Amino acid sequence: MKAEIVTIGDEILIGQIVDTNSVYIAEQLNLIGINVYQKTSVSDNRKHIIETLDRAFATSDIIIVTGGLGPTSDDITKQVLAEYFGTNSMKIHEPSLNIIKNLMQRLNIPLSEINRRQAELPDCCIPILNRNGTAPAMWFERNGKILVAMPGVPFEMKAIMTDVIPMISEYFKLENIYHKTLLTYGIPESVLAEQIKEWENNLPKHLHLAYLPNPESGVRLRISAYSGDSRKSLEKEIDAQFAALRTILKTAVYGENNENLASAAGKLLQQKGAMLATAESCTGGHIANMITANAGSSKYFVGSVVAYSNDVKIKTLGVNASDIEDYGAVSEQVVCQMAQGVRIALNADYAVATSGIAGPEGGTNEKPVGTVWIAVATPQKIIAQKYILSKLRDINISRASAIALNMLRLELLND
Amino acid sequence: MKAEIVTIGDEILIGQIVDTNSVYIAEQLNLIGINVYQKTSVSDNRKHIIETLDRAFATSDIIIVTGGLGPTSDDITKQVLAEYFGTNSMKIHEPSLNIIKNLMQRLNIPLSEINRRQAELPDCCIPILNRNGTAPAMWFERNGKILVAMPGVPFEMKAIMTDVIPMISEYFKLENIYHKTLLTYGIPESVLAEQIKEWENNLPKHLHLAYLPNPESGVRLRISAYSGDSRKSLEKEIDAQFAALRTILKTAVYGENNENLASAAGKLLQQKGAMLATAESCTGGHIANMITANAGSSKYFVGSVVAYSNDVKIKTLGVNASDIEDYGAVSEQVVCQMAQGVRIALNADYAVATSGIAGPEGGTNEKPVGTVWIAVATPQKIIAQKYILSKLRDINISRASAIALNMLRLELLND
Repeated sequence: MKAEIVTIGDEILIGQIVDTNSVYIAEQLNLIGINVYQKTSVSDNRKHIIETLDRAFATSDIIIVTGGLGPTSDDITKQVLAEYFGTNSMKIHEPSLNIIKNLMQRLNIPLSEINRRQAELPDCCIPILNRNGTAPAMWFERNGKILVAMPGVPFEMKAIMTDVIPMISEYFKLENIYHKTLLTYGIPESVLAEQIKEWENNLPKHLHLAYLPNPESGVRLRISAYSGDSRKSLEKEIDAQFAALRTILKTAVYGENNENLASAAGKLLQQKGAMLATAESCTGGHIANMITANAGSSKYFVGSVVAYSNDVKIKTLGVNASDIEDYGAVSEQVVCQMAQGVRIALNADYAVATSGIAGPEGGTNEKPVGTVWIAVATPQKIIAQKYILSKLRDINISRASAIALNMLRLELLND
Repeated sequence: MKAEIVTIGDEILIGQIVDTNSVYIAEQLNLIGINVYQKTSVSDNRKHIIETLDRAFATSDIIIVTGGLGPTSDDITKQVLAEYFGTNSMKIHEPSLNIIKNLMQRLNIPLSEINRRQAELPDCCIPILNRNGTAPAMWFERNGKILVAMPGVPFEMKAIMTDVIPMISEYFKLENIYHKTLLTYGIPESVLAEQIKEWENNLPKHLHLAYLPNPESGVRLRISAYSGDSRKSLEKEIDAQFAALRTILKTAVYGENNENLASAAGKLLQQKGAMLATAESCTGGHIANMITANAGSSKYFVGSVVAYSNDVKIKTLGVNASDIEDYGAVSEQVVCQMAQGVRIALNADYAVATSGIAGPEGGTNEKPVGTVWIAVATPQKIIAQKYILSKLRDINISRASAIALNMLRLELLND
């Protein structure tokens, strides 16, 4: 059972938006055992869309299309699909029209002809409601294969997928594909590969290993099982392999699947009944953002002081003004006082702090762009460590944040 | 002149990583007037890679490949490309080997055979140095068309692209394609379409308009010019069209091209010589993160208090404990005190504050998930506004952050 994801829209091809839709769709299809064979992005161009659908139907059983269903003139997906599936009869889908009317009413906008026409669908499709937007989704069938077209707005698409997935499950008999990922941080990919070489060589043939390195989440090790075994036995087998990996990689392992460094640290904090605060200079709130992206983080996170100016470091965090003068804001002295200062000011048990030169400006010979001091304060002690990261601002912000959360996690494990 | 971007790697097809590489590559190609015809993601599978290259060479002049160049056994791109371009002779590229040696030395890791082999390249390619990683890039030529293969690690790829772009410019004679984007916030796409209908109908045929809606940046209006005119005259023509749009859309326009809501507010703050602080509850540091993602933000941003717990709201921001008790943390009273409190505590001129229920838990009948209060404090006054956003945590965090920055921007325009 193969699927292809086709995203339609010039905005992807000219690099104006990041395609997160196909990530979500691929993930959801994988969970029900469907292998995504290819992803293709094409422009809002009739001929190119049709060529792509022809090719996709030749290799795949399921085609998921997103984009090009908006109300404006550059959106042509619906018309092209009607033509592709051989109809020119469009009819109003009343339940979708009602949703559109309600949406417009809630936004206090009169219903326009443009909006009304969004409820018009080719008569050969099965309409799927879009409860969060004006463009309904469409399900087409051809020779035992299906095509689903959804709007490209991510949260509308996600909600629609919760209906599409069970429809696909019902329509097809599905083989077992099962993925599970072990998350590691702090060991470079090539070193990791050497460390687990023997284990990898002994991996049974039907288990496939992939390395997924990422600056914000370390190296993730994914095992995929393509065998026809039942999901339960695969799960058990992979868990046994993960246990062996944990023995080799020890504390470098921080979780599985969709966990992240922040939620892993959060779990340890909750086990201790402890609360966390952060004091961020160069990371500018990114650590707090990573923590609070996790639902339920208020159980272990009290808050953060983003101390971008020295004034805030001094007044709110209690850093010695003379230490900033003597050692600079990017120094062991200052970052330790920031960590301890926020721990006390925000009445937390643990704290992390960052102070660095994110770039592109502000570097000196002695402290080049990418220099970052990171501190962790616990109820017992304060530790700090200097890193030289990159020349790139966004990389420095995300790597410093990940390193800080990992330092915290390792301290929590030791405590 | 057409290009195709091909990303290789199972991790994209199973939805484990977001493909930001192709966004960057498309953007860079566009800047030199190259149209990306298609983007394709395929797995680490020899046959599928070869089929894809055959199809891509049939329609495109430039093929940019990323991924599958890592040191581990699942990475097969280099071998497949050697086969595809008809060689089995691999030779060590000494300058790349030196980079690898230096990298390993800096990381204090002995040079492994795996690492050494990364410097082995097919003899028919032109090697391109990767100064930030172990996998060099490769340039292949065939019948006046080219293929460039780069590693998939984003910051390595980006640095390599700064060499690749001039190489492409030199190799090909390039037509003029020019994009410019006007950024708007606060008007829904369909309403915007009605407002600019007359203007759009009068747009010259060689200018192509696209609507790019996004919850974090509003609706962006992009004009593309595919004509053979010189870049300067196109630029002038599009600027005149943008001036007309600004007259229609007024303060909904916040910038052009790569600006963002935070940098737009930052520009206005700098004009006033004013400093900003934020107090964030439900947005958890995301506003500070959006602000500090912009280089130079320390010129107008002092910092933030992420007040996740009520304790921090009371102690650090000076919110009345009794008001939290009487009205709840998600209330006009509390959010106004947060804004004013952080403005004073952090000694800023302006402040924004958020307090809401991001979800998925914590909602009540009276205040459902998605309820957010946002306040802006200026030197003269405090304003606050309630919004009911969505049921989704990530959407609520990013929309509340964008709305807050836009409220601030509008206040700065009025002040």
